[in-house]
Amino acid sequence: MENNEEQLSQAISKKVGLPPGTLIHVGSKKSEHVSIELVDYSKDHYQSKILPTPEDCTEHATSKSTSWINICGLHQVDKIAAIGQKFGLHHLLVEDVLNTKQRPKLEVFEDHLFVTLKMIGLNKKGKSIISEQISFVLGDTWLLSFQEIKGDLFDGIRERLKNSGSQLRDFGPDYLLYRLIDTVVDNYYHVSEYFSDASEKLEDRALRETEREIVLELQHTKRSLLKFRKAVVPIREVITRLQRDESKFITDHTRRYLHDVYDHILHVSESVEAQREVLSTVVDLHMSGVSNKMNKIMQVLTVISSIFIPLTFLAGIYGMNFEHIPELKWEYGYPTFWGAIIVIFIGMLIYFKRRKWL
Amino acid sequence: MENNEEQLSQAISKKVGLPPGTLIHVGSKKSEHVSIELVDYSKDHYQSKILPTPEDCTEHATSKSTSWINICGLHQVDKIAAIGQKFGLHHLLVEDVLNTKQRPKLEVFEDHLFVTLKMIGLNKKGKSIISEQISFVLGDTWLLSFQEIKGDLFDGIRERLKNSGSQLRDFGPDYLLYRLIDTVVDNYYHVSEYFSDASEKLEDRALRETEREIVLELQHTKRSLLKFRKAVVPIREVITRLQRDESKFITDHTRRYLHDVYDHILHVSESVEAQREVLSTVVDLHMSGVSNKMNKIMQVLTVISSIFIPLTFLAGIYGMNFEHIPELKWEYGYPTFWGAIIVIFIGMLIYFKRRKWL
Amino acid sequence: MENNEEQLSQAISKKVGLPPGTLIHVGSKKSEHVSIELVDYSKDHYQSKILPTPEDCTEHATSKSTSWINICGLHQVDKIAAIGQKFGLHHLLVEDVLNTKQRPKLEVFEDHLFVTLKMIGLNKKGKSIISEQISFVLGDTWLLSFQEIKGDLFDGIRERLKNSGSQLRDFGPDYLLYRLIDTVVDNYYHVSEYFSDASEKLEDRALRETEREIVLELQHTKRSLLKFRKAVVPIREVITRLQRDESKFITDHTRRYLHDVYDHILHVSESVEAQREVLSTVVDLHMSGVSNKMNKIMQVLTVISSIFIPLTFLAGIYGMNFEHIPELKWEYGYPTFWGAIIVIFIGMLIYFKRRKWL
Amino acid sequence: MENNEEQLSQAISKKVGLPPGTLIHVGSKKSEHVSIELVDYSKDHYQSKILPTPEDCTEHATSKSTSWINICGLHQVDKIAAIGQKFGLHHLLVEDVLNTKQRPKLEVFEDHLFVTLKMIGLNKKGKSIISEQISFVLGDTWLLSFQEIKGDLFDGIRERLKNSGSQLRDFGPDYLLYRLIDTVVDNYYHVSEYFSDASEKLEDRALRETEREIVLELQHTKRSLLKFRKAVVPIREVITRLQRDESKFITDHTRRYLHDVYDHILHVSESVEAQREVLSTVVDLHMSGVSNKMNKIMQVLTVISSIFIPLTFLAGIYGMNFEHIPELKWEYGYPTFWGAIIVIFIGMLIYFKRRKWL
Amino acid sequence: MENNEEQLSQAISKKVGLPPGTLIHVGSKKSEHVSIELVDYSKDHYQSKILPTPEDCTEHATSKSTSWINICGLHQVDKIAAIGQKFGLHHLLVEDVLNTKQRPKLEVFEDHLFVTLKMIGLNKKGKSIISEQISFVLGDTWLLSFQEIKGDLFDGIRERLKNSGSQLRDFGPDYLLYRLIDTVVDNYYHVSEYFSDASEKLEDRALRETEREIVLELQHTKRSLLKFRKAVVPIREVITRLQRDESKFITDHTRRYLHDVYDHILHVSESVEAQREVLSTVVDLHMSGVSNKMNKIMQVLTVISSIFIPLTFLAGIYGMNFEHIPELKWEYGYPTFWGAIIVIFIGMLIYFKRRKWL
Repeated sequence: MENNEEQLSQAISKKVGLPPGTLIHVGSKKSEHVSIELVDYSKDHYQSKILPTPEDCTEHATSKSTSWINICGLHQVDKIAAIGQKFGLHHLLVEDVLNTKQRPKLEVFEDHLFVTLKMIGLNKKGKSIISEQISFVLGDTWLLSFQEIKGDLFDGIRERLKNSGSQLRDFGPDYLLYRLIDTVVDNYYHVSEYFSDASEKLEDRALRETEREIVLELQHTKRSLLKFRKAVVPIREVITRLQRDESKFITDHTRRYLHDVYDHILHVSESVEAQREVLSTVVDLHMSGVSNKMNKIMQVLTVISSIFIPLTFLAGIYGMNFEHIPELKWEYGYPTFWGAIIVIFIGMLIYFKRRKWL
Repeated sequence: MENNEEQLSQAISKKVGLPPGTLIHVGSKKSEHVSIELVDYSKDHYQSKILPTPEDCTEHATSKSTSWINICGLHQVDKIAAIGQKFGLHHLLVEDVLNTKQRPKLEVFEDHLFVTLKMIGLNKKGKSIISEQISFVLGDTWLLSFQEIKGDLFDGIRERLKNSGSQLRDFGPDYLLYRLIDTVVDNYYHVSEYFSDASEKLEDRALRETEREIVLELQHTKRSLLKFRKAVVPIREVITRLQRDESKFITDHTRRYLHDVYDHILHVSESVEAQREVLSTVVDLHMSGVSNKMNKIMQVLTVISSIFIPLTFLAGIYGMNFEHIPELKWEYGYPTFWGAIIVIFIGMLIYFKRRKWL
Repeated sequence: MENNEEQLSQAISKKVGLPPGTLIHVGSKKSEHVSIELVDYSKDHYQSKILPTPEDCTEHATSKSTSWINICGLHQVDKIAAIGQKFGLHHLLVEDVLNTKQRPKLEVFEDHLFVTLKMIGLNKKGKSIISEQISFVLGDTWLLSFQEIKGDLFDGIRERLKNSGSQLRDFGPDYLLYRLIDTVVDNYYHVSEYFSDASEKLEDRALRETEREIVLELQHTKRSLLKFRKAVVPIREVITRLQRDESKFITDHTRRYLHDVYDHILHVSESVEAQREVLSTVVDLHMSGVSNKMNKIMQVLTVISSIFIPLTFLAGIYGMNFEHIPELKWEYGYPTFWGAIIVIFIGMLIYFKRRKWL
Repeated sequence: MENNEEQLSQAISKKVGLPPGTLIHVGSKKSEHVSIELVDYSKDHYQSKILPTPEDCTEHATSKSTSWINICGLHQVDKIAAIGQKFGLHHLLVEDVLNTKQRPKLEVFEDHLFVTLKMIGLNKKGKSIISEQISFVLGDTWLLSFQEIKGDLFDGIRERLKNSGSQLRDFGPDYLLYRLIDTVVDNYYHVSEYFSDASEKLEDRALRETEREIVLELQHTKRSLLKFRKAVVPIREVITRLQRDESKFITDHTRRYLHDVYDHILHVSESVEAQREVLSTVVDLHMSGVSNKMNKIMQVLTVISSIFIPLTFLAGIYGMNFEHIPELKWEYGYPTFWGAIIVIFIGMLIYFKRRKWL
Repeated sequence: MENNEEQLSQAISKKVGLPPGTLIHVGSKKSEHVSIELVDYSKDHYQSKILPTPEDCTEHATSKSTSWINICGLHQVDKIAAIGQKFGLHHLLVEDVLNTKQRPKLEVFEDHLFVTLKMIGLNKKGKSIISEQISFVLGDTWLLSFQEIKGDLFDGIRERLKNSGSQLRDFGPDYLLYRLIDTVVDNYYHVSEYFSDASEKLEDRALRETEREIVLELQHTKRSLLKFRKAVVPIREVITRLQRDESKFITDHTRRYLHDVYDHILHVSESVEAQREVLSTVVDLHMSGVSNKMNKIMQVLTVISSIFIPLTFLAGIYGMNFEHIPELKWEYGYPTFWGAIIVIFIGMLIYFKRRKWL
């Protein structure tokens, strides 16, 4: 079981005592090397290439056309720092980009906006969730995006950018930012689905079975949901502040679309809360199932004991060796005894039937 | 068991990666074809007809008399899009109309207001609830309403519109909107009644019985109530914002009536919260009933075992084959034994009576 | 068990589809006929009479002296409507007066204020609560009060009005309104006392007994308390808004007194919350009592079984019919056996004593 | 068990129907007679005496030096009323002074401030808390304090007032008020200590014992804590409003010190909340202890029954009287039987050992 | 188990009745003597020494270079008071410095800012937390810090101050204050890690074991977490207010960095809340484990009893001494009996297998 909380703490404790702005990479997963992809576009122009060194960014930081620079891999701190310098990023910002254990947040700087989010997906078996940090820096004419590993999440956007008829080509980097955030948020729906499924299955199992495993799985699902929630909830504030932000970076046109993203994130977070509520009742269901089973076990024990213990006593009576037990000498003593046994037996059965214990 | 949450997620995941404003119909239920009904009225004029094509709406979009256009069925995306164009609707709005998994909301556009709600009813057996999305777009002189299926909900309003003496004829489309929303909200009372009944029955059963089925039904009712709550709660905000809205679309006259709707929705949502509270105690009642039953079972077992186990031991004593057991040779050994048995038996009964276990 | 929630829903569902402002009486209890009492007073003038028809109100609607018109019984809709017309009441207001299932509220109209409250009392046996709706309409020089049934609640006020030295005679209808509300609120103390008693008794019983009846009574008390709470909580807002209201209807002099009522209602509602908390712990107490009893039952069973089952086994040994059991032939076999039995018995007792099971 | 809630209700119900401002004493404890102590001081002047009648206050109501008049005992309504008249107190204020069941509150009048608090202490045995109401009226140059009984709480203040070098002599009655309130609040620490002790002891007992008494004591402590909380929580608002009050009665110098009191009261109320949380987990601890004990009881029963019931069966077999039971005739039948018994016995022990039931 | 709550109460009760501003040391831990360390620095100047007496501070209170005076040990009240006088501190502030049981807070005075925090660390065994109070007073050109004991927490800062290239040397005492607070807050991560570990271990144990010890440890961890939370939560407000403070003491440059501290403290406090949630479910897990174990115990008991009690009865039958029991005389009576026994035995096993009790 991965313990992210702990990792974060270790990560930050690595930094305890260092002066603020010291750039170190905090995080465990590393891609093999840092790749820098450039997409430069305007209404009637499109160019895409891999930039070999951070220095190649220079011209794009000031060009009039929109430049999207996507950096995959964060472990080569000097490269990231070099890019930061090219675009005039505050060193606290660069520090935040490198620390992959950030809480989703928005920070407004004089010359750019900084947004950091979690990309949440399912692992290949579809049985647990994986989380990756994505940071965006939005400038006048450029957008930087920093990912931990190279993924295919933004391939759809890349395709559409090639198409000169696409809406994406009509607007600036803020609209691109919206589209990228939208893609990340849309992905949350899959995860939300996963939790919805998982919690319903657990609920159904808790209604039918009394296995202890349910509790183990429940605990596992709860932890994952908590992790998901930690990624989702702060985004509401991020989007709200992006919309309300009065800086020049977000145009009115994009603002309207951000409202749409806000609706989506609201929907996901309501669904998360609903799942939490469902999961919290699963324990009760389980406990009630266990109690119920206990009741049935006790009924069986009680019915059998209550019937046979008195009968055994009776048999014990006539197993005694007193010299003068007149019943023992009766000719029909034995059949009479059996008669009594059967009458008591049936009487007991009726009694328990009436009490609905049978 | 229908899992709406999941459907929604699937619905939206269909759209992941598509550019915003791409019009596709999200939802499962479809009416056979899209029908467009027009009611055009003013103080002294009334006309009602079926419009064969969206193009026929054109003149009504600008006429001075009030036009109510009710569209049933949402699966023919092109028709809905055509209507949207006639009335100058924003394409995000049209997208929202087609996505039948919206959260109830109000959006204010420059030329019109958009309201989307859930119509909640009971299914025919009256055992579970069904939900349908209704969207309204309110313009200067016209009101569009979009339903998933053709229902008889608004028949009363249609009848009253025919009557030239009706209040409805005196006011514009905003008053009509109020009346339609009022009709939807009034319907919530039936559903609220259903939950009130259901939860009271469950509570009474939990007080009397200890069957596990109660838990199953409880869970079912809780899920439905959650669904209902999701439809009801956001409407409070919708109505509040409609009232406070400073656009020209809602007149002061209608505003007063909207306050009345607000009171109703407040009443329904308080009732929903009360039902939730009742349902949440039902599990406790059930558990306490189960514990109680267990106690009774254990009492029976304990009483019978505690009486007969010692007696059986006594009988065992005199079933032993020691050569020298003087009691066995006593003339009144057997009756004395029975005397002892009876004394012990009665003593035990008195003891358990005092402890109130009998 | 009366189910008010349901009644209300039925009541309102009667109205589903009717145009707003349609006047029908919603509620079950009816007095035999509608009586209209007038008290007309000023500093040095007092007159009290029964008005046979609504038309007789006309002069009092405009007279300079203060007129208090108390209407008992709401089922003759036309009479109420006629009174409404005389005093220029909005038809939504009259509708609210007739609907006896309102939530307590304040509405401010141009020419009058509308306040509706619940009178809560104990029934004659003092075992459950009864609720009656009282509505007030406050105008410039007059006060209308609408009750469902004729009660003696306001007799004290009537007496004091006759007395020319009374404060009531010095001030206008707003002060009279304050006094009437104050009387209603003071009555809540009796009900609060009842719940305080009831919950303390339940708590004490749950600490001493384990009867299932406690749960039944608890449930009953909880429901009543919920009903009471529904009447009390919204009044806080009503009084606050009355105090803050900037209309001419409430004078500064009365405002100070309303603050006093607010303190009372705050006190009652804090008491209600305290009772809720107490009641919510009663289930836990009960469950802990049940568990405790179970423990004691199990101890008895365990002690008796653990002592006698091994002893019975021993007796069984010497009841066997093997040909060569040397002990059976010993001269002191039987007394030795008894010795062993007694040693084991006492050993067991000491063991259980040490474990504190005896 | 004292039920204050009830007393208050009765107290107020005494007043139901009386006109507001009717002066009656509400409360149970009475000192023998009403005593009026005067302390008159300024920077360089100090005088202390007992005033025999309310009339003797007259000169002090207007003198330039600071007058502190401390009234002990509230049952002689006419005396209190006379004092009220001398200082021009509103009759609602005097009513509140006499009603010893007030919620702590601050009221601002034109010519004076009214503050009422609860003095909370431990009774002599230190096993339960006692509560007394203290009211203060702060005027321009005077401070009235009303206590139910004469206590030694303010003796420290009196001593310090005699000392001409004391800070108290440098400032007006508002600083004196601060010092008196501070003394009352400081006293809450003792009570807070008591609850902290009590809850820790209960927690420890619940971890070690399973006696039902714990639940009884827990319930008792909870009730007391609730009472304490009712006294403490509203004071936060009282102090905040005193600080913010813009009237002339509180000087800036005193305001700073009030902030200090606020910190103290915040500390006490946080401690109260912490104790509540601790107490709320004690029931869970108790229940888990009870469950644990039950488990151990059941283990003993199960181990003993599971071992001896099969053995008894075996013994029963060879106690049968079939004519042809070959084993009975074997020469080593009996020792073989014992061998089997011992093997089974040890096998069972090992089994239970492995399951950790022994 | 240390009971800090109690200590605080005792501490404050020591002061009950004393005039405000009376300087006494409140707290238990004492360093051996009070040491006063001075670090005086500017861009190009660095000096560090131990000041033997408070009087030596005088020149540094007004010098232009930045002076950091760190006082360790608070028990020599006169020394602290002397330092207070040199820097013109309000006597309420000095009182707060000496009272080591403060809630973290910020107070703004005219000439300086006062901040008090808790340093929280793990004890040497890493099994429980220790807490120390640290107070800061920030003036124009100086910063005072008061610690209870001499620790090595700030050694990193001291080292960096010596280095003339360090950022610390470029900025004033407000930046130094930020760095010191940052160091304290960074330390919280270790503690947060500890709780994260502890709660996860407890959770895992509760899933696997049913020992009562888990409850004891859980209780212990809960108490420590509560203490940690009490230190962490109020700091959020302290930092927020520091940032927003409009006094001259905090420069804009430092404000940006304070935001970073705020993010950290937010992270820690969210982690604390998450741990609380985890711990609160551990009891449920434990209880469900206990129930589960009980079920298994009961199953064993029931299976064994249900099989052997009826068989024992059968054996008892043929142990009876009736003269005419025909079966006893059958030649194959005994084997037939065994046959019946085995059939019943196997039948029972199958029955319990099907019920999944085996």
